Amino acid sequence: MSDKKIQPRIMPGFMELLPTDQIMFNRLKDTIKDVYESYGFLPLDTPVLELSDVLLAKAGGETEKQIYRFTKGDTDMAMRFDLTVPLARYVAQHAGELTFPFKRYQISKVYRGERPQKGRFREFYQCDIDIIGNDELPLIYDAEIPSVIYSIFKKLDFGKFTIRLNNRKVLNGFFESLGLSENITDILRAIDKIDKIGAEKVLAELTDLGIDGEKGEKILAFIGLLGSADEKIGSLRQLGIESDTFNTGVDELEQTVKNMRLFGIDESYFAIDLTIARGLDYYTGTVYETVLDDYKSLGSVCSGGRYDDLTGYYTKQKMPGIGISIGLTRLFSQLKAAELITPQSNTTVKVLVAPLGVELKYPLEIADTLRAAGIATEVYYQDKAMKHKMKYANKMAIPYVAIIGEDEVRDGKVTVKNMTTGEQTTVNANEIANVID
Amino acid sequence: MSDKKIQPRIMPGFMELLPTDQIMFNRLKDTIKDVYESYGFLPLDTPVLELSDVLLAKAGGETEKQIYRFTKGDTDMAMRFDLTVPLARYVAQHAGELTFPFKRYQISKVYRGERPQKGRFREFYQCDIDIIGNDELPLIYDAEIPSVIYSIFKKLDFGKFTIRLNNRKVLNGFFESLGLSENITDILRAIDKIDKIGAEKVLAELTDLGIDGEKGEKILAFIGLLGSADEKIGSLRQLGIESDTFNTGVDELEQTVKNMRLFGIDESYFAIDLTIARGLDYYTGTVYETVLDDYKSLGSVCSGGRYDDLTGYYTKQKMPGIGISIGLTRLFSQLKAAELITPQSNTTVKVLVAPLGVELKYPLEIADTLRAAGIATEVYYQDKAMKHKMKYANKMAIPYVAIIGEDEVRDGKVTVKNMTTGEQTTVNANEIANVID
Repeated sequence: MSDKKIQPRIMPGFMELLPTDQIMFNRLKDTIKDVYESYGFLPLDTPVLELSDVLLAKAGGETEKQIYRFTKGDTDMAMRFDLTVPLARYVAQHAGELTFPFKRYQISKVYRGERPQKGRFREFYQCDIDIIGNDELPLIYDAEIPSVIYSIFKKLDFGKFTIRLNNRKVLNGFFESLGLSENITDILRAIDKIDKIGAEKVLAELTDLGIDGEKGEKILAFIGLLGSADEKIGSLRQLGIESDTFNTGVDELEQTVKNMRLFGIDESYFAIDLTIARGLDYYTGTVYETVLDDYKSLGSVCSGGRYDDLTGYYTKQKMPGIGISIGLTRLFSQLKAAELITPQSNTTVKVLVAPLGVELKYPLEIADTLRAAGIATEVYYQDKAMKHKMKYANKMAIPYVAIIGEDEVRDGKVTVKNMTTGEQTTVNANEIANVID
Repeated sequence: MSDKKIQPRIMPGFMELLPTDQIMFNRLKDTIKDVYESYGFLPLDTPVLELSDVLLAKAGGETEKQIYRFTKGDTDMAMRFDLTVPLARYVAQHAGELTFPFKRYQISKVYRGERPQKGRFREFYQCDIDIIGNDELPLIYDAEIPSVIYSIFKKLDFGKFTIRLNNRKVLNGFFESLGLSENITDILRAIDKIDKIGAEKVLAELTDLGIDGEKGEKILAFIGLLGSADEKIGSLRQLGIESDTFNTGVDELEQTVKNMRLFGIDESYFAIDLTIARGLDYYTGTVYETVLDDYKSLGSVCSGGRYDDLTGYYTKQKMPGIGISIGLTRLFSQLKAAELITPQSNTTVKVLVAPLGVELKYPLEIADTLRAAGIATEVYYQDKAMKHKMKYANKMAIPYVAIIGEDEVRDGKVTVKNMTTGEQTTVNANEIANVID
């Protein structure tokens, strides 16, 4: 072994956790997974590396610059930068073998070679669900998706949150009616900033786009509509806009709000927000963002929407869909920084088996009994004084210690100490699982 | 959207599954994870991409040629090719923040740009556990590791299996005593092939290495020792070899066999196999291989061993450890080909809620009740005839259908059909979870 040591380190923009944080991270990830599965989303696990021509069919501009792309042998390959493109490729490739609507979840890492900065990661988990239809997908799913969001953030328990929703047809129809169809992309980009830069600067940007003051004011009045979801829908109808696109959008929005109520989503947990546009050339119907009411500065923690054509780059078959994504790595790092989540335990171990001057056979049987009951158990093998064993249990925050001395072995018993309350009880070996919470 | 379509496809050597197989794969993965956690191994999730100088500190030859390595900006980076090097880097980097012995598991994908061939993957899951000591690690862990293997393969239920074990000190000491210390690497490589090429060809290879016939016969006699574990240990002692290394190795082997019995590992599930050498310059004590008795041709499905110095490339601190790895992607593909595992279900969904001409509010409440009880539930939203709904449940192999018509809504009931037995029962809404297995 060489004497020259290489400094052990990772690259900036990559999150790696100590066990305590990793356990906490996994709890969030498992909660999201469990809810996704409870709604019938099926697991998918696509390769991290794909052929560049497949993965970059749609990319361009900023996205393409961020890709980790390289050649090995004669093959031009790239690391996935999201889970949507691989889903599109997968659905197009396997359409004949899937049952539609195809509901899948994928919780995987994606890669973007961004300039590292606070809150930006080069490797991060996305937790995605999508529902893909073959030719068509009923509107009811536009309400099932927020129902999934509602379940997840209720379970994650980060306090009150709001699912903001909008419909791209409402936006597109409105701008068409003003004769601004050509400018929609630019207008949406300006509108998207309203929370950050305020109404006046948005108006200035609209003027820069060559939109006159009157139309600019109309746009601001439109996105500034106030009131409950029902009131906003009423106000939209009263605008008297003659655009089929607009009216279809308002109908969809109204129906989706009604359906969300059917799904039991508490009225105070959602709101129509006409400023939400999301991806500029992708979404075509309902769009969502989710904000934590007490941590609005985090921005949207769960976003998505409906799109008409997932697979257009790969197949002529029309595949509309709807989906959302949670950027878990970023969310975790923000919540931790905000101390909204704090580690609960340094270990997943529930019981430390501590033999006290006895042969290991009986303590190991106790450990087996516990593991068979689904209780994670560690054995303290080293022949040390009891205080060392207790100190270790305390340090690792293991909630129970099973003490096994000569008396316990002789009588077929175990003495269980609850490390939180300090209580100690002696039970029969086969009853030990019952005294562990 | 362009009319020219890109053929949706993935690269050879990358495994991607349809949902039915993915569900089966995840069951295996979760079983392994659950057992690892039940023994107190903590989760770890290192980056896929690391700095090349860190990741390739130890690599060379074949390994280095297989690495996916590239430069982005000024940074020379590579995709991990195993989970051991990242573990070494992690432990060296965070030694001050970890509690030793540090027990971690990592179940992650690794990357090797091999020439694609049957049974070889370029992206595959490794399921690793390691126990790392600071300066020293008690011998008892050499028995805990096979106890974990025993639990996993009992649970996975692929039939009878054998954990074969050996000790590198026994091998090294034996060859030292023959004055063959210089040739150990080559001899071990020859011996490793005995199952494939037979004793005679191994003897020929030994002759090619300049080992005379007498020594060659001694080597074959040594690795061919017969009998139970205890008998082999007895035979090793009777060889009367005067080498401290050898005798320490025999002591460790004997103690480990005794400890494995303490751990409750059935005698018929393990055997000493003096031909096992494993990695040539890495392991220093106990080594393991695991074979499925009915599918020996699969080779070892779970291998590992003890090493003296995990972190030597990164730190002067001495960190001995012991670990095993299961190559799950390869194992899965082999077991599937051998039809030793077969899909049990096309979905993780347990209940399909089928509304029959009623408003969705009540069926959605039923779905919520089921999900709150941890039962994955899908709702059939489309307003189609009952036979379509039953057909869908059958196709997806969903085990229960909850039928909700006008009577059920009026009476606050649900009619549950068991799709396996055909039995149908009507229960109160709040009791539905009780009739689902």
